[in-house]
Amino acid sequence: MPETHVVGQPLPRTDAEEKVRGEAIFATDVQLPRLLVGKFLGSAHAHAEILSIDTSQAEALPGVRAVITAADIPKVDTYDPDNRNHAFMARRFAVYAGQPVVAVAADDLTTAGAALELIKVEYRPLPVVFDVREAILPGSPAVSREVTADTESEAATEEQELPNLANRHVFEHGDTDAAFAESDVVVERTYTVPVVHHGYIEPHAVTAHWDRAGHVTVWECVQSPFEARDLIADTLGIPHTNIALNTTEVGGAFGGKWKGIYGPLGVLLAIKAGRPVKLILSRHEELISANPAPHTVIWIKTGVKDNGTLTALEAKVLMDVGAFPKHDGPSAIGVSAMMRNKYKFQAWRLESQDVLTNKVAIGPYRAPGAPNAAFAIESQLDEIASRLGLDPLALRLQNVVDEGDLLVGLQPQVKNGVKETLTALAEHPAWTDPPPPRRGDDGLLHGRGVALGAWGSGMWPASASATLEADGKIRVILGQVDVSGSYTSLAQIVAETLGVSAQKIVMKKAGTDHATYAPVSGGSGTIYSMGSAVEEAARDLQAKFLKRAAQELEVSEAELEVNDEGVFVAAEPERSCSFQRLYELGTDIFLAKYPPVVSQGSTLPQQQAPTFAATAAEVAVDPETGQVTVTRLTTAQDVGKAINPLSVDGQIQGAAAQSVGMALWEEVMYDREGQVGNPSLLDYHMPTAADMPLIETIIVEAPGGDGPYGAKGVGEPPMIPPVVAVANAVAVAIGTRIYDLPITPERVWRALNGRSNE
Amino acid sequence: MPETHVVGQPLPRTDAEEKVRGEAIFATDVQLPRLLVGKFLGSAHAHAEILSIDTSQAEALPGVRAVITAADIPKVDTYDPDNRNHAFMARRFAVYAGQPVVAVAADDLTTAGAALELIKVEYRPLPVVFDVREAILPGSPAVSREVTADTESEAATEEQELPNLANRHVFEHGDTDAAFAESDVVVERTYTVPVVHHGYIEPHAVTAHWDRAGHVTVWECVQSPFEARDLIADTLGIPHTNIALNTTEVGGAFGGKWKGIYGPLGVLLAIKAGRPVKLILSRHEELISANPAPHTVIWIKTGVKDNGTLTALEAKVLMDVGAFPKHDGPSAIGVSAMMRNKYKFQAWRLESQDVLTNKVAIGPYRAPGAPNAAFAIESQLDEIASRLGLDPLALRLQNVVDEGDLLVGLQPQVKNGVKETLTALAEHPAWTDPPPPRRGDDGLLHGRGVALGAWGSGMWPASASATLEADGKIRVILGQVDVSGSYTSLAQIVAETLGVSAQKIVMKKAGTDHATYAPVSGGSGTIYSMGSAVEEAARDLQAKFLKRAAQELEVSEAELEVNDEGVFVAAEPERSCSFQRLYELGTDIFLAKYPPVVSQGSTLPQQQAPTFAATAAEVAVDPETGQVTVTRLTTAQDVGKAINPLSVDGQIQGAAAQSVGMALWEEVMYDREGQVGNPSLLDYHMPTAADMPLIETIIVEAPGGDGPYGAKGVGEPPMIPPVVAVANAVAVAIGTRIYDLPITPERVWRALNGRSNE
Repeated sequence: MPETHVVGQPLPRTDAEEKVRGEAIFATDVQLPRLLVGKFLGSAHAHAEILSIDTSQAEALPGVRAVITAADIPKVDTYDPDNRNHAFMARRFAVYAGQPVVAVAADDLTTAGAALELIKVEYRPLPVVFDVREAILPGSPAVSREVTADTESEAATEEQELPNLANRHVFEHGDTDAAFAESDVVVERTYTVPVVHHGYIEPHAVTAHWDRAGHVTVWECVQSPFEARDLIADTLGIPHTNIALNTTEVGGAFGGKWKGIYGPLGVLLAIKAGRPVKLILSRHEELISANPAPHTVIWIKTGVKDNGTLTALEAKVLMDVGAFPKHDGPSAIGVSAMMRNKYKFQAWRLESQDVLTNKVAIGPYRAPGAPNAAFAIESQLDEIASRLGLDPLALRLQNVVDEGDLLVGLQPQVKNGVKETLTALAEHPAWTDPPPPRRGDDGLLHGRGVALGAWGSGMWPASASATLEADGKIRVILGQVDVSGSYTSLAQIVAETLGVSAQKIVMKKAGTDHATYAPVSGGSGTIYSMGSAVEEAARDLQAKFLKRAAQELEVSEAELEVNDEGVFVAAEPERSCSFQRLYELGTDIFLAKYPPVVSQGSTLPQQQAPTFAATAAEVAVDPETGQVTVTRLTTAQDVGKAINPLSVDGQIQGAAAQSVGMALWEEVMYDREGQVGNPSLLDYHMPTAADMPLIETIIVEAPGGDGPYGAKGVGEPPMIPPVVAVANAVAVAIGTRIYDLPITPERVWRALNGRSNE
Repeated sequence: MPETHVVGQPLPRTDAEEKVRGEAIFATDVQLPRLLVGKFLGSAHAHAEILSIDTSQAEALPGVRAVITAADIPKVDTYDPDNRNHAFMARRFAVYAGQPVVAVAADDLTTAGAALELIKVEYRPLPVVFDVREAILPGSPAVSREVTADTESEAATEEQELPNLANRHVFEHGDTDAAFAESDVVVERTYTVPVVHHGYIEPHAVTAHWDRAGHVTVWECVQSPFEARDLIADTLGIPHTNIALNTTEVGGAFGGKWKGIYGPLGVLLAIKAGRPVKLILSRHEELISANPAPHTVIWIKTGVKDNGTLTALEAKVLMDVGAFPKHDGPSAIGVSAMMRNKYKFQAWRLESQDVLTNKVAIGPYRAPGAPNAAFAIESQLDEIASRLGLDPLALRLQNVVDEGDLLVGLQPQVKNGVKETLTALAEHPAWTDPPPPRRGDDGLLHGRGVALGAWGSGMWPASASATLEADGKIRVILGQVDVSGSYTSLAQIVAETLGVSAQKIVMKKAGTDHATYAPVSGGSGTIYSMGSAVEEAARDLQAKFLKRAAQELEVSEAELEVNDEGVFVAAEPERSCSFQRLYELGTDIFLAKYPPVVSQGSTLPQQQAPTFAATAAEVAVDPETGQVTVTRLTTAQDVGKAINPLSVDGQIQGAAAQSVGMALWEEVMYDREGQVGNPSLLDYHMPTAADMPLIETIIVEAPGGDGPYGAKGVGEPPMIPPVVAVANAVAVAIGTRIYDLPITPERVWRALNGRSNE
């Protein structure tokens, strides 16, 4: 790997000052003249036919400026009733509790709330499809689906058999039965993961402005501005280029704000009211009407030889996708693939079923589906290691899929750092230190566990522009939002490429009107994809200004070098041309000698870059209460090249907290009526700093991929292993295993006391 | 000239609907939370030393949020006291009546006005330097100049001799005395042009927002966003990239809003107040504190042979530049050059002097200085034609500088359309129709006059980006503002280049944070310069999408053609790839096969493109009142290629109105105390539709330059000849000549009645 000067430096975030000073503009900070407040009435029922809606009293309330129902949504060719994003308001059927049925725009929140209370909706309740295992059975009541002329006929026939089956797939390879027969040990378990919420600090928020000439301006807290724009265009039939979507700061997203959810609703209110409207979800609405991570039920059967060689894998994955077949969340098929792809098996049979229920549609959450898959396969491996008396980390190293080994689609795995990652953890004190005695002097039960997570680096098309500036800086224009300090890392890439310090780079975020295409900030693709685009823009810019400087200084470009001031002749440093001068010579209407020095980068990564993270966790369990405390947590991760190690550390630490939360506390609790029982952060327990130990990080830099300076995706991999490492540590500590997340004190206590956890 | 399909079409303006509906955002429409109103106190004296300023009572007034004086301006290295833009507030000296001395930001305009009345400024009045002819004399009182450590010593010595001489230059070539001696006729006259205001509908306006992290956002009505940004940066010492300047719609500018005037003042108020501030000039302030066109006194002597061959030119140009040597307006040297450059002379001696007076600094106004120059030289030619009994149009054709003839700097003139322009007018009924009888049956005196104007095409560096869009349109991103429908013409250039219709092009104006460099919308350079940049961007975009389409359709690029839907195989039109599909293949994170299809254009024109306009005007003069009515006005203009003939017609017609206004009515009237006597549009007479005849246009398309599709600059040339064509027509009508503008009824009456007009 070539030596770098700016890339690899642990730099503080460039947006720190404005955020600390409260100057950063979040969605709620957007203010416009005559701005109204939007609010929606969610369905009282998880499943019902809407017989009538009476909005007359609400419309008559002073201060109410618009009342809309699905009837106000324009008819557009692109409408797809199966698509959750298109079903932002209930039409004939309400299919989850909290689904918007009516929305209002009013002068203030109080008036909006009062208006909602005046609305009378007549529902005909329908049987609530609640349990994924029941929903998939023949004869189950069906989640209602809206129909269009196109979908009516096909929907009718298929519904008879398995009315809630949204998608089914089988991966099959080799003779699974024979492989199991040859195995020395076979472990067969069922693992469940509940619905989990992302827990971003800032709720979904959109402010929409419409003008009578047909232009729409939207300020929205989303990760993928162009997709968010296109969602509004497609659902409301507005030409894409009539919509300017300006992303605000993102107060946490984790996949949950990919393209927004209620952008179209906000715009529709603004059009109806003829005034701008701001719609901010309450925390309650976030927990019932957003797009959580999926509940899964995974039956898994694993065969292994006494020497630790894995043989066969069989699994059946049921994923509860909520009420819509089309959504932005993961799928059961992906979970199946992820279970297979980390380890070598000679045969496998993996059945995947996406199942509809009367719950809100699922969405992407940091490494979507991967914690679900990992909880199953990594628990299995741990149980196998325990049964065979093998070191669980060594067992993984022994079986892991490496370069050239076949993946589930029978394509070979590419170059990666899985062994380096596992080895780095294996050699770290987190693993080499003697484990804590199971029964400590503190009266607590102790255990140590390990787990491995695998993910990829997002390969998105991306583009950006760059230009020299009047103050001698380099301005980079991009449409992507800064999530978790990514602008700082992107600036480091630009600075490294140009040969200047990071302070010379100014990143400017543009909305969809002014940016060329930029992809989502997510999917572990920000640095891998946008990093490549800004690197290309920087290279192009450098080529251009070196050419100009060579003209000015009357030397060949090869004789030139770059520093923070500009370009100089290497052999005679006093012969130089500052960036300011180069700007002037390309802009001043009197002095200009050549065109403006501007550049573009537009890229699509060509090489996959798989990424791996491995976590060792230690827990202490109180046998009296069942309470689990994580006492030590260490994650090793292959990031290819840490562009900004501070940022990488932050990603690993933040992900660990979310993953531990999933292990021990987090669950959106649905009752059989499809109602969420804990729609508040008082009742939905997210970890706080007090719940977490100091998290140690081990940055591994293995070659692979074609990312900038060797970088790979960083954000999602560290989310995957901690949840299972903790579960595996608890299993060691309490001597028995819990197959359902979260591992609550009640479940631990029941396990310790021989009670069923069913 | 190659055949074009979109270029050359008379298309209505793309911004028509939003403007007609009142949705376009002008500077006054910008609203921000906690927005304050800014207002300044102008100096009561045209010339005074400021002894003290007491703002204590104003600061104590409830609702006043900031009070600033020059003492609040940060000390910056770039400060230049001679530069009007840097002297946006008076420091030690007030040098023109109305110069800002104190400014306030308050909750509303009433409070701001009340605060100003509470401010006590103690002045020591100084002698007012008023008349340019007196000001240039040795021993004249001097316009005070602020000093810095740098300028103190040099200023002291130079001031002794000619204290108000800002700049002097002489063009001299050949033996002028001998040439006059050989002439058959010598005409020697002095022409004056008064200070004239642009008369834009919208006044100067700026809204400034500052945050504690040091970012400044400005919404300003300016023609040159980057220069306006840099002005704020340079005067206040703010890094350029910390300032985002967003241009609003331009409600008329005509050069007067090049880089704004009070942007720095608005920003300084916002910083001091810690809240956003909007500052809008009143019409009164516009007329006393903006940047009008200059007063000139031109003595000119012209020799000619009996056969009409011009021989010698001598001139002395005094230009009253106001109180600052550095300003954005024209200079006397430019006026001298313009007088020489239209016609061939064997010898010339042209002395130019820029003179300081205690008036507001001048600025650019549509063809800056050219009407002043034209009034002198084109009146002279008319008088010569009359004396020799020659056709005044033929006299011009005979003497005009054509390709290869030497210009004032002895460089050869380049290819141009001057003869085509004059010939087109000569052959038009406006000239071939018999002239009206001098004494008509209507009791009025009639006359017809002609004049020629010359100008250039602005050669600015320019850049823009383009991209395919989700709705199949092409989005062009540029930093330039749309002045007089230029976006419509630019879209036509892009459409023509791509082979699609103009409706497929969407122009998006970006602020200085998000646009790459764009030059001023002005100087007849919008189409010539930015037109080239968007043409290059379109060509680059087409190359990219043709390459992608060729891949998709598995043919060579040569087999492809383009229509409004996308790209198709010429021989098999059903084999096609839509623009939407091409967008998707370069953006969709699942389907992408290549990078986003984006492009850039960055250009600097290399060839000059001189432009010419010639006007024939007919007037009717009431001998009782001296009132002049323009009864017919026809302008022929070489535009190279009319990208949008509707837009060209509009430019010619609008300019005619401004030029006729200058001929007959417009004058900012200063008294000897340096106070403006008519600072209101009730007293400053601008023409209305009722004052103007229908204006005929003759579009000439002569080759030359390297503009897009042959286009040359359009906006300024038609401003030049009407003022003199009208004056020449009046001279014919009344049988005597008026040498001072405007040709008011009083002056006409005096001339008709043998009274002096001195």
